[in-house]
Amino acid sequence: MQPGLVEQLIIRNDSKIVLLVMDGLGDIPAGGHQAPLEEAATPNLDQLAEDGTLGQFDPIAPGITPGSGPAHLALFGYDPTVNDIGRGLLSALGIDFDLTEKDVAVRINFCTLDPDGNVTDRRAGRPPDSENRRLCQKIREKIVLPDGIEFFLETESQHRAVLVIRGDNLSDQIGDTDPQNVGVPPLDQKPLSPEAERSVAILGSIIDQVSIILSDEKQANMILLRGYSGFRRLPSMEERFGLKACAIAEYPMYRGLAKLVGMTALPPYKDFDDSISILSRQWNNYTFFFLHVKKTDSYGEDGNFEAKKQIIEKVDKTIVPGIQTMAPDVLIVTGDHSTPWIMKAHSWHPSPVLMHGILVRKDRSEKFSEIECQSGGLGRLPMINLIPIALACAGKLAKFGA
Amino acid sequence: MQPGLVEQLIIRNDSKIVLLVMDGLGDIPAGGHQAPLEEAATPNLDQLAEDGTLGQFDPIAPGITPGSGPAHLALFGYDPTVNDIGRGLLSALGIDFDLTEKDVAVRINFCTLDPDGNVTDRRAGRPPDSENRRLCQKIREKIVLPDGIEFFLETESQHRAVLVIRGDNLSDQIGDTDPQNVGVPPLDQKPLSPEAERSVAILGSIIDQVSIILSDEKQANMILLRGYSGFRRLPSMEERFGLKACAIAEYPMYRGLAKLVGMTALPPYKDFDDSISILSRQWNNYTFFFLHVKKTDSYGEDGNFEAKKQIIEKVDKTIVPGIQTMAPDVLIVTGDHSTPWIMKAHSWHPSPVLMHGILVRKDRSEKFSEIECQSGGLGRLPMINLIPIALACAGKLAKFGA
Repeated sequence: MQPGLVEQLIIRNDSKIVLLVMDGLGDIPAGGHQAPLEEAATPNLDQLAEDGTLGQFDPIAPGITPGSGPAHLALFGYDPTVNDIGRGLLSALGIDFDLTEKDVAVRINFCTLDPDGNVTDRRAGRPPDSENRRLCQKIREKIVLPDGIEFFLETESQHRAVLVIRGDNLSDQIGDTDPQNVGVPPLDQKPLSPEAERSVAILGSIIDQVSIILSDEKQANMILLRGYSGFRRLPSMEERFGLKACAIAEYPMYRGLAKLVGMTALPPYKDFDDSISILSRQWNNYTFFFLHVKKTDSYGEDGNFEAKKQIIEKVDKTIVPGIQTMAPDVLIVTGDHSTPWIMKAHSWHPSPVLMHGILVRKDRSEKFSEIECQSGGLGRLPMINLIPIALACAGKLAKFGA
Repeated sequence: MQPGLVEQLIIRNDSKIVLLVMDGLGDIPAGGHQAPLEEAATPNLDQLAEDGTLGQFDPIAPGITPGSGPAHLALFGYDPTVNDIGRGLLSALGIDFDLTEKDVAVRINFCTLDPDGNVTDRRAGRPPDSENRRLCQKIREKIVLPDGIEFFLETESQHRAVLVIRGDNLSDQIGDTDPQNVGVPPLDQKPLSPEAERSVAILGSIIDQVSIILSDEKQANMILLRGYSGFRRLPSMEERFGLKACAIAEYPMYRGLAKLVGMTALPPYKDFDDSISILSRQWNNYTFFFLHVKKTDSYGEDGNFEAKKQIIEKVDKTIVPGIQTMAPDVLIVTGDHSTPWIMKAHSWHPSPVLMHGILVRKDRSEKFSEIECQSGGLGRLPMINLIPIALACAGKLAKFGA
């Protein structure tokens, strides 16, 4: 897709698009099972498949396993290979940290160094979250900062935390200190461009102080830094596609990703029924609704076939008919990527896609499943095409050329 | 497709490729009907599908609805997002105006201005063609031109006409005067580059004169200009692909589009039998035959399901067996874009493609229809890939690399 091609054709109207994302939905047949989506009893999704069309979309490119950040950018119509989301930014979004454009966010690991200064455990024995919180608190209390610099250190979980410095003219063009290995010392920070030298100096002082503050700790006696990232707001979905977009999501990271592309992140929903109440209450205020379900991915990561299957059935029983009550012009059901339960991890397998709407060209599909998606009418496409097709089906794209 | 990749592999030989385009062929199931191509009785096309292969090709990109110009460029193997065809050029092609490289063509609307100079009707009440011809004649008789400039003003239909100026060093880098709205005055022409200033001055004088010449008209008392376009001949299909190409088409616009890529536009055919007579007479003179049928699109635009279906049946009965008599090495049947009858307009749905030839890899298709194309062996591809595949199947492409 030519950059800017879609943007020049945008028609602003009130037609409604709903994007229902079951995180990590895609799976593979394994362990005597069909894929969870295939085995699940999903009469509502199957009816949508029969009336609509299916396809299999690659989040990034064939063979590439995406993280949550790039996968969601592609879902939202943003090229994830151009719009790089740093790990620091993603971690900050994940804990609902409210980043500003003056911030540089860094993902840190608490780690263990031996007396010679070599890393012996990159995860400091995976401390409990309470221990992580104690360590963060201890550092925050003792750290001394230069004038004009603010410092935040927030627990993610176990050995993971987010470090943020805030000030004028900071730069994220800095190489990691995490050596990604044991038996070697942490790396020195490297400025990747000349304007990063001041930020390197500020963070270098912070690292040196932390090393002293934590010197009496048995396990977590040092930190490793990686994924330095500034907060660069992307052109919004409103600016690019004329969509008034909102996010209905439980988890902070997905609300953060949505905010990154200018969506309004509505308050987290409490349960699936609540997600539909929110959708219904906000129906007249937006034209694009991103509804995110996390547990399909979580159960995939846990290797729990049965639970993943059941949560899909629950979505089919509650969320899907709830959305249908609102009669959106276009309804898309998909995942951000596949999370095969047998792999307990994200994978590269294309994501099953269902699209339903009056101008959608129907195919022969009778059921929503990976195997039906393989012969679906949408074919196999890069995920970044999802939004343009949805815009077209919602009457939001003018003709190209005379 | 890497630009220039195909061109470096060209083998010139006498094998024959026929590209049969049913304009706006693609459709969607709607109103209790399958798509017209699906419902039509097309035994000859179905036999070709059974012996050949199918696919669904996106004229521009998924979700993008193309105009006729870009859609045909893609069919001919030209990237329509790079090779922009202006509306003035397309209008000139459409009336069979013989453009030269000294020309700038502009699409004009006759319009109505109120006494304050604001547009009240962008189409001057859609005058009959005879009225349009009278207005053009009146302007041509009275207009005064600078030395070295020729002026043409030709009726398209209703309120539409084509204005052409011819001379040395003219430029089409000029912004439209059509405000695309009523209640406001026409816009001033804007030079979009410094070398356009002379052309702006010449056209500005023409506009001022037209305003005086038409001042006694009740409705059509002004003109609006848009889509300024110079005639830039593209590298020909002979130069790029080694094809001696000809066009067999009823309508001037498609003959013009063919000429733009260096095809010989044979005289318009009178009926389908005549199109086959021309094909047969010219068989030894060319290696590529573009045969264009307009009415599939026209009936789609009219919202006439039955007529669209019947014209497809007639093509199947007359043109298809006529082509088969000539035994081309590769026969392609497709549309330039979809024109769903329920939408009465071009659409973004991919175009059904049928390819037949001895080296075409057969698929499981048993019938030529949109729904069979969705699971066809060619898959879903950008239309610009059509010519390279056809060239390969005709033995016209050498191996890439050792």
